Amino acid sequence: MKLYHSTASPYVRKVLMTAWECGLASRIELLPASGTPAAPNRDMAARNPLMKIPTLIRDDGSELYDSIVICEYFDSLAGGTLFPPAGEARWQVLRRHALVDGLLDSALAVRYETVARPEPLRWQEWIDGHSAKIDNALDALEREVDALPAAFQIDQIALVAALGYLDFRFASRPWRPGRPKLERWFARLSERESAKRTVPT
Amino acid sequence: MKLYHSTASPYVRKVLMTAWECGLASRIELLPASGTPAAPNRDMAARNPLMKIPTLIRDDGSELYDSIVICEYFDSLAGGTLFPPAGEARWQVLRRHALVDGLLDSALAVRYETVARPEPLRWQEWIDGHSAKIDNALDALEREVDALPAAFQIDQIALVAALGYLDFRFASRPWRPGRPKLERWFARLSERESAKRTVPT
Repeated sequence: MKLYHSTASPYVRKVLMTAWECGLASRIELLPASGTPAAPNRDMAARNPLMKIPTLIRDDGSELYDSIVICEYFDSLAGGTLFPPAGEARWQVLRRHALVDGLLDSALAVRYETVARPEPLRWQEWIDGHSAKIDNALDALEREVDALPAAFQIDQIALVAALGYLDFRFASRPWRPGRPKLERWFARLSERESAKRTVPT
Repeated sequence: MKLYHSTASPYVRKVLMTAWECGLASRIELLPASGTPAAPNRDMAARNPLMKIPTLIRDDGSELYDSIVICEYFDSLAGGTLFPPAGEARWQVLRRHALVDGLLDSALAVRYETVARPEPLRWQEWIDGHSAKIDNALDALEREVDALPAAFQIDQIALVAALGYLDFRFASRPWRPGRPKLERWFARLSERESAKRTVPT
């Protein structure tokens, strides 16, 4: 299999952590790809009309996206346990995954606004609104983190990728103050092989 | 159950169409909610830290989000068939759902850029990049639409919501020219009860 990727993308990291957790990492060839919404990677258009990473090319040549679809596919290949079957555990894992992905969507929105967009065109209300979403999500995760199931599932994989992304791109806006439970959880889970193999660069 | 909603949101429409398809619509009380990323609906923060619609409040008071999680939950309640079980049919349905949701994400990005953002702060490259994603996705769907499975599943629900949203918000940028198969498909599926009950206003 081949994966269009960037070592900086938290959505790609989620997929690669899943691959490591599923024992599939050695079967994946990485194809470097970059791009932003304002400068999409048009070379990818034949593979993914949205021109986004991660995009997976399977061994039969067909494509899969987006990140959670690839993760569920990997989990299925591995006969895995990263996605609970239908029922309350599944809804809670998928809800938390959506919370973390929404946090990341807002983090990327702030990043594009403050780095990619020309300075005279930046809009403070946009940055403030997305920053409120990020802060609310982190506060909610601080309240939930000690009650997370012992199983390391797709919600927790996403959370490692998200907190790692904040460390990577938002070091000047630290997320740890006031969130000691999340800080301890992240320090512990960052020791997993899947996390150590995929630190953003 | 209660649903934070707006009659203009295509993600909410996806959830409400799913509720109609699952025979659950009469069990859902609609709670009006509005907001944009730059002016989030802070009244919703206690229910969904991301302050986004759709957000579902279940009968036990607990919340679910985002849209596809609510849809899969409804389908499960109904013993439904809108999400195929693990296997190739599921990966294709979820891939197409992601394609349509990505199209919608770009449509919303263009809408926020051209309506919500103050005029002097608008960035043409942002609009052009997202417009290319929308066009590519529509062209890909034109190529796929005649081969869609007969079953009306979550990918097709999302596609009705997306094309209806383009008619609603992007009438000045018509999607039908050059896409006759998609046009015929949309005309046919728009006759479903679930579609007629949820036309955006």
